[in-house]
Amino acid sequence: MKAKAVVLEKFDEPLVEREFEVQPLAAGEVLVRITAAGVCGSDVHMWRGKDPRTPLPMILGHEGVGEIADTGGEKLDLLGRPLRPGDKVMWERGVMCGKCYYCVVRKEPSLCPVRKTYGISFSCADPPHLRGCYAQYLHVQAGAHFIRIDDPIEPATLVAATCSGATAAHAVQVSRVRPGDVVLVVGPGPVGLFSLAFALKAGASRVYVSGTPADAARLEMATAFGAAGTLCVGETTAEQRAEFLKDVTGGFGPNVVIDCTGSVRALAENIALVAPGGTYSIPGIAEPRESFPLDLFAHIARKNVALQGVWVSDTDHLWQAIQLVLARDFPFEKLVTHTFPLADAMQGLGAVERCEAVKAVLAP
Amino acid sequence: MKAKAVVLEKFDEPLVEREFEVQPLAAGEVLVRITAAGVCGSDVHMWRGKDPRTPLPMILGHEGVGEIADTGGEKLDLLGRPLRPGDKVMWERGVMCGKCYYCVVRKEPSLCPVRKTYGISFSCADPPHLRGCYAQYLHVQAGAHFIRIDDPIEPATLVAATCSGATAAHAVQVSRVRPGDVVLVVGPGPVGLFSLAFALKAGASRVYVSGTPADAARLEMATAFGAAGTLCVGETTAEQRAEFLKDVTGGFGPNVVIDCTGSVRALAENIALVAPGGTYSIPGIAEPRESFPLDLFAHIARKNVALQGVWVSDTDHLWQAIQLVLARDFPFEKLVTHTFPLADAMQGLGAVERCEAVKAVLAP
Amino acid sequence: MKAKAVVLEKFDEPLVEREFEVQPLAAGEVLVRITAAGVCGSDVHMWRGKDPRTPLPMILGHEGVGEIADTGGEKLDLLGRPLRPGDKVMWERGVMCGKCYYCVVRKEPSLCPVRKTYGISFSCADPPHLRGCYAQYLHVQAGAHFIRIDDPIEPATLVAATCSGATAAHAVQVSRVRPGDVVLVVGPGPVGLFSLAFALKAGASRVYVSGTPADAARLEMATAFGAAGTLCVGETTAEQRAEFLKDVTGGFGPNVVIDCTGSVRALAENIALVAPGGTYSIPGIAEPRESFPLDLFAHIARKNVALQGVWVSDTDHLWQAIQLVLARDFPFEKLVTHTFPLADAMQGLGAVERCEAVKAVLAP
Amino acid sequence: MKAKAVVLEKFDEPLVEREFEVQPLAAGEVLVRITAAGVCGSDVHMWRGKDPRTPLPMILGHEGVGEIADTGGEKLDLLGRPLRPGDKVMWERGVMCGKCYYCVVRKEPSLCPVRKTYGISFSCADPPHLRGCYAQYLHVQAGAHFIRIDDPIEPATLVAATCSGATAAHAVQVSRVRPGDVVLVVGPGPVGLFSLAFALKAGASRVYVSGTPADAARLEMATAFGAAGTLCVGETTAEQRAEFLKDVTGGFGPNVVIDCTGSVRALAENIALVAPGGTYSIPGIAEPRESFPLDLFAHIARKNVALQGVWVSDTDHLWQAIQLVLARDFPFEKLVTHTFPLADAMQGLGAVERCEAVKAVLAP
Repeated sequence: MKAKAVVLEKFDEPLVEREFEVQPLAAGEVLVRITAAGVCGSDVHMWRGKDPRTPLPMILGHEGVGEIADTGGEKLDLLGRPLRPGDKVMWERGVMCGKCYYCVVRKEPSLCPVRKTYGISFSCADPPHLRGCYAQYLHVQAGAHFIRIDDPIEPATLVAATCSGATAAHAVQVSRVRPGDVVLVVGPGPVGLFSLAFALKAGASRVYVSGTPADAARLEMATAFGAAGTLCVGETTAEQRAEFLKDVTGGFGPNVVIDCTGSVRALAENIALVAPGGTYSIPGIAEPRESFPLDLFAHIARKNVALQGVWVSDTDHLWQAIQLVLARDFPFEKLVTHTFPLADAMQGLGAVERCEAVKAVLAP
Repeated sequence: MKAKAVVLEKFDEPLVEREFEVQPLAAGEVLVRITAAGVCGSDVHMWRGKDPRTPLPMILGHEGVGEIADTGGEKLDLLGRPLRPGDKVMWERGVMCGKCYYCVVRKEPSLCPVRKTYGISFSCADPPHLRGCYAQYLHVQAGAHFIRIDDPIEPATLVAATCSGATAAHAVQVSRVRPGDVVLVVGPGPVGLFSLAFALKAGASRVYVSGTPADAARLEMATAFGAAGTLCVGETTAEQRAEFLKDVTGGFGPNVVIDCTGSVRALAENIALVAPGGTYSIPGIAEPRESFPLDLFAHIARKNVALQGVWVSDTDHLWQAIQLVLARDFPFEKLVTHTFPLADAMQGLGAVERCEAVKAVLAP
Repeated sequence: MKAKAVVLEKFDEPLVEREFEVQPLAAGEVLVRITAAGVCGSDVHMWRGKDPRTPLPMILGHEGVGEIADTGGEKLDLLGRPLRPGDKVMWERGVMCGKCYYCVVRKEPSLCPVRKTYGISFSCADPPHLRGCYAQYLHVQAGAHFIRIDDPIEPATLVAATCSGATAAHAVQVSRVRPGDVVLVVGPGPVGLFSLAFALKAGASRVYVSGTPADAARLEMATAFGAAGTLCVGETTAEQRAEFLKDVTGGFGPNVVIDCTGSVRALAENIALVAPGGTYSIPGIAEPRESFPLDLFAHIARKNVALQGVWVSDTDHLWQAIQLVLARDFPFEKLVTHTFPLADAMQGLGAVERCEAVKAVLAP
Repeated sequence: MKAKAVVLEKFDEPLVEREFEVQPLAAGEVLVRITAAGVCGSDVHMWRGKDPRTPLPMILGHEGVGEIADTGGEKLDLLGRPLRPGDKVMWERGVMCGKCYYCVVRKEPSLCPVRKTYGISFSCADPPHLRGCYAQYLHVQAGAHFIRIDDPIEPATLVAATCSGATAAHAVQVSRVRPGDVVLVVGPGPVGLFSLAFALKAGASRVYVSGTPADAARLEMATAFGAAGTLCVGETTAEQRAEFLKDVTGGFGPNVVIDCTGSVRALAENIALVAPGGTYSIPGIAEPRESFPLDLFAHIARKNVALQGVWVSDTDHLWQAIQLVLARDFPFEKLVTHTFPLADAMQGLGAVERCEAVKAVLAP
């Protein structure tokens, strides 16, 4: 059997459609027919050649939903149910060793030293080739964690849970939100909108969301997701935003800030706003950048504040993100603003790079 | 100035309307004009003489919302804002010492050994008499914790936050709900409905609620509050309920059960259903009762389960409950099914005793 | 190659020495030469036929320390170091699936539904036969978690960390000990002594230990391990013990009780003593037993107490127990009071059954 | 009655001995006869005029142990025991409101917006004058938290628990030490030595301590307190220290770093060393300083690390510090290297400023 994929062969040049021979499955391996592949902002970075990890040639796509095509022997999902051809499934995008200090003692497999990711870490030059979701089929390693989806929900609606949703789950998990807290989410992209939803589910009484003028449509979506208010950089000054956030928090500022932008400028503005005892978490920082001049006394020490890193996610977070979408308390179906056939993957990358899309999805 | 109150003078006999001279305020004391007083199930117990703590004669009513009538000098609310006559306010119903091991080391003031409660622990025989909310005015001790309510919400909608809401906040706080969990709430009264809402805000993906045929209207309200499903004892067998809960949880059972009934029979049925690693909390147990024959191996040890007591609440929980109501994510305005003038307090007690009301409120 | 083992063929009859052909190693499997095998109280139970899980014929022994004899291809320890023949090692005694809800979402692999244990769950009738530590060699499955021990410590001193130590780590982890707390450990066997040490390492300012007259030597050892005091049932009345514990805790009682006895009588006495807000954990309950008549109001609800189950342990707890022993803050070398050659395994079972030994070890 | 005190009247000039009339006690106030007053590093800063909060003239001394001289009516300690003249006591050095959001909702009274501190925030110009411990008597406000000390321990041995010990308790509490972790304490002064002890009591298997050549005696004391090793800046290069710490942690680095130096240079070196998933806490930052250029990606985001502020402490931490000293698991009696009569307070400030003393104490 052959499978089509769009392949990143040279940075900054169009992905190229190629065909690969599907390899036989070893024990425990799974072949998934991809029904929806998410276009993540980091796919754009990789395509542009900004991520030093990228092994060319490769198949992008670490966000995916699919159907079981075949399994190498009996394979169970997380709940112990045997996977059958045709089952709608999701799977942990990270490949962890499952037996190191971080996997089994600390139980933070996102920190497993040998962690790899489908659609990021694998070249398609070597068999089994199909290690990214911008393809008709994904060849999944033995030991992967699968979740069967019995809900008739659209695959496209679920696909952002794989990475954006799981990362947001992780961010909120380490951000120490307490019931009744006020939270500020900076950056209303997919991670930001999931963070908004998870913060509300973590007990926040109100979540405010800030963005740039380019985020106008995303800020509207934040309101649809339950934001108590939105703040547009460009339409307001930093002073006005600070004033507003003080006014709505009895003068203390938001208890938690989840900064999904990766922008040092956003950090400089917002870290001053955290309430004493609060947390500033930075799921948006995913690549090396310049040093940030931190006021240790005023912004960290004097206020008992934690500046908290958030590195990717694990199956716990994926599970949380899937449950969140399936519970339908938030309009995740609105998240997918653009859908393209696999052959038009370049249009998907473009829509994300230009911030036109909240979420763009490929339907292979 | 004089203030009317309805007084419990003899158990099991009608409350009697009396007038008391309002006493002058010492420094830090506050006189509140009651605008809504909740009728709690424990008020019925006290009236029936089932609570050995009850000091006759006394003014019932530990749930209250009101307006500042006067303050003994400057008095600030939790956010440091001076309280002015006419301000809409709520306050912690418990009177704690604020300087013992439980108040300042362990920070669980609900366990303060000398904790007292307005409407429960004070006789009205002694000045300042007005220590319960079934009255036009409440005379609040120095050191009390006040929250000014700037929201134009109806006082009656807020009043259940004082006790039912705060207790539910406490129950959920100690029940170790994790994002994505399935929760079962047993007993759809005010504590149960608040627990349902708090469990959803603690990350539960689905909350099921069970009740008796007498709870039919309350179970409907649970659905309006976002329950994923309801179970009516009487219309189903225990086996059917167990089967249903296994089916919707991949065979494991609910991760957390919050049992608001205080019924040993409910406990016997439901403790067997908790998923491994889960918690069974019992905010409904508020009075001495017969021993419960617990299967330590099957229901606790073999499953890593915690059986968790929940005793009253503190200002943290009150704060959470108020924020929850004010956020308007749940239809708390529907909770108040019955409102009576103060003079008809007996009708309120009756409506609660007969389970006709979800929440009955007196409007003095 | 052949390996000797002592085999449980019939309950209540002496173990029988047998020889097995060592099987070839598949990829990821490990052959360990056992240098110390612990005799656990549950080994006695299994030998007596009290554990319904026991599959005859079988090789007992779930506590072990050994040396790498061979590996099926490269095999890394938790810290990513390749295991070489002769390396001193320990390993997680539980065999978990590593990909179910409990393994990867909840991260409590001790609750993995298909968890098995070397020396407990495997018959030696089927290859590779060598699945218990009462043998010269143990044949370990692929995927197992190994810890290389570089410290020159005696294997016998470490062996109790495998099960007793790990279980105690788990018990203390879920017992919510806070810095400065007073803890009561009931039952000074290996789990109790490890619990004492872990409780001190969890911040307890003082740990008291109670036991029976048969525990006299163990209570002395508790003092050597740093107990603030010991209580001997038989030399004191229950009232005296309660009085003593109130006196040394400002009247509140111990904040945490870790009951390692599995005795319903011990539970009945001690659950009344827990301080408000405390935890009563029961690592000692490992088998079905009669129901316990629990006073829900006085002992759980009124005091915010948690009754907490503790089921076995996972690699996190094993890691903790090994670190604890290696840190040498406690005299674990004294724990091993009896050592026997493999052929005298029956003497080991006897010494444990008669409570003569604190810890008995076989040196195959 | 008159009381002597040494008064800070002008920055950088010798403290001056003055006499004050002891004022009558209002209800709830307490007069304490000081038996030991600690000389804290921040006293030197205040004397040098480096702390903008300092209200002249004032009596320094926020660390104290004393005896009850008199009480304004009945006054209970934390355990509900009435305080009598002659009782040995300690008390919370912070004066918090006890009824604001941070005191009663968030339960972090160290963040109370109106928190003041004896020996720091009060001028002695106004009655009751005696608000610092560099005096024969301290006049304590109503509502203060007292702990009666029944142990015959020397007051000087306890005095550092008041501030250094409590701050260290707070630092360790928020540093997320897990059982078995390796911890690095930077700076072996009183806060560092208490942090070492608390980290061991929080489950650390090994704690390393680093200091400068001026800290030689303090590093020796760290060894006496149980440090697994010490590192002297000046005798080793930064590369050697990093290498050493990697070697002893399987290559990961210490899980937690508690930096008690307040030195940006120390931070720059050590934040690179934290293990993934770890915490870097900064109890040493107590004053404004220059910005720190933080590598957000490498040191925070990529490793899930938290940079955690630690601001002062509350009564919970004081309680922990007192229990720690009283448990005598660590040689706190060695901490006090210098004792002076009150009149020689300047010698105490000098010994601390020149780092000659680990802890200097005044005995009024």
